[in-house]
Amino acid sequence: MRPINPERQAERRQHILAAALRCFAQKGFHKTRTADICAEAGMSPGNLFHYFASKEALIIALVEADQAEVCARFARATQAEQGWQALLALLDHHLGLCAEPVYVQLTLDVIGEAVRNPALMACVQRSEAERRECLARLFERHAQTGDFQLSSPPGQVADWFLLLLDGVLGRAMVEADFVPARYRADLLAALQLQVRPLTS
Amino acid sequence: MRPINPERQAERRQHILAAALRCFAQKGFHKTRTADICAEAGMSPGNLFHYFASKEALIIALVEADQAEVCARFARATQAEQGWQALLALLDHHLGLCAEPVYVQLTLDVIGEAVRNPALMACVQRSEAERRECLARLFERHAQTGDFQLSSPPGQVADWFLLLLDGVLGRAMVEADFVPARYRADLLAALQLQVRPLTS
Repeated sequence: MRPINPERQAERRQHILAAALRCFAQKGFHKTRTADICAEAGMSPGNLFHYFASKEALIIALVEADQAEVCARFARATQAEQGWQALLALLDHHLGLCAEPVYVQLTLDVIGEAVRNPALMACVQRSEAERRECLARLFERHAQTGDFQLSSPPGQVADWFLLLLDGVLGRAMVEADFVPARYRADLLAALQLQVRPLTS
Repeated sequence: MRPINPERQAERRQHILAAALRCFAQKGFHKTRTADICAEAGMSPGNLFHYFASKEALIIALVEADQAEVCARFARATQAEQGWQALLALLDHHLGLCAEPVYVQLTLDVIGEAVRNPALMACVQRSEAERRECLARLFERHAQTGDFQLSSPPGQVADWFLLLLDGVLGRAMVEADFVPARYRADLLAALQLQVRPLTS
């Protein structure tokens, strides 16, 4: 038996995840077979299964990686000195994602899987709760320092912001020619119904 | 062979659809077996398959029935004399639906199925396009009569209204304790960023 090299293991996992993501982006989760991922990664099924026990395990690992990134972005926003700029950056990042058909399709696929897979649904809900928690802390902190004036408790303001983001994604999911950036000014004005920046 | 009685046939179809809906609401589409629906409807599989060839056919028939109702509601709103009241009624109806866990769960199930079933996805997209078309006509007509002042072309105002509705549904899908009615005033204020009622 060869000794285990954790760095090499992590590299192989990343390699497989990147191959799986390319397959899912091209064909969707449902139509992608494990054989497609093996071919894309240039690995035998035995080797691949050593790292991920099933296609479902791959999906969960991908969703967890994406959500770790999302949560890190929201956590950084919580720490930002310029609260309003941080909110704008989160909004603009979301508008950019929703303008990418592959992102929108993969998100639909994740929902489709999560409906059938309680572990994936739990993973999505944990990440949603964390996003909301980060936003609520952001609103609370900047309200305390006098940067923001809130119309509701911080958690409710966080929900309002997330409601607006969800709306953009919802439209992008059903309208092929929806242009998210077109609604930026209205989204900002709607956000200001709940949070008013008092300093620039 | 007995002669075909169309009225009796339609009744049987309704009976089966109602039984299927009860099963889906209880267990979700994915976990419901055809045998569950037969038991709920009190019919043999052979008899049920005479009306619907598969579980997927049942799902499509249910979605089509629901969407016919949705489209009829939006079409009535288009004809309403009181444009703003009609919009309020559509919003309140949506807030009511999003407060019902069974409705939210079934909508998630429909998305989960549609990702795998192009016929169902096409059905969802047709209905979305029709909803948008009805709303655009409503905005256009009331802008022409001077009831509404629009900030954008009617189709774009329709998208803004639907974006807000999607946002409510999106939150209800991931937050078990989300209270849609709490956001009614903000949703109305946000809507007025794009459409201003000039008469009551």
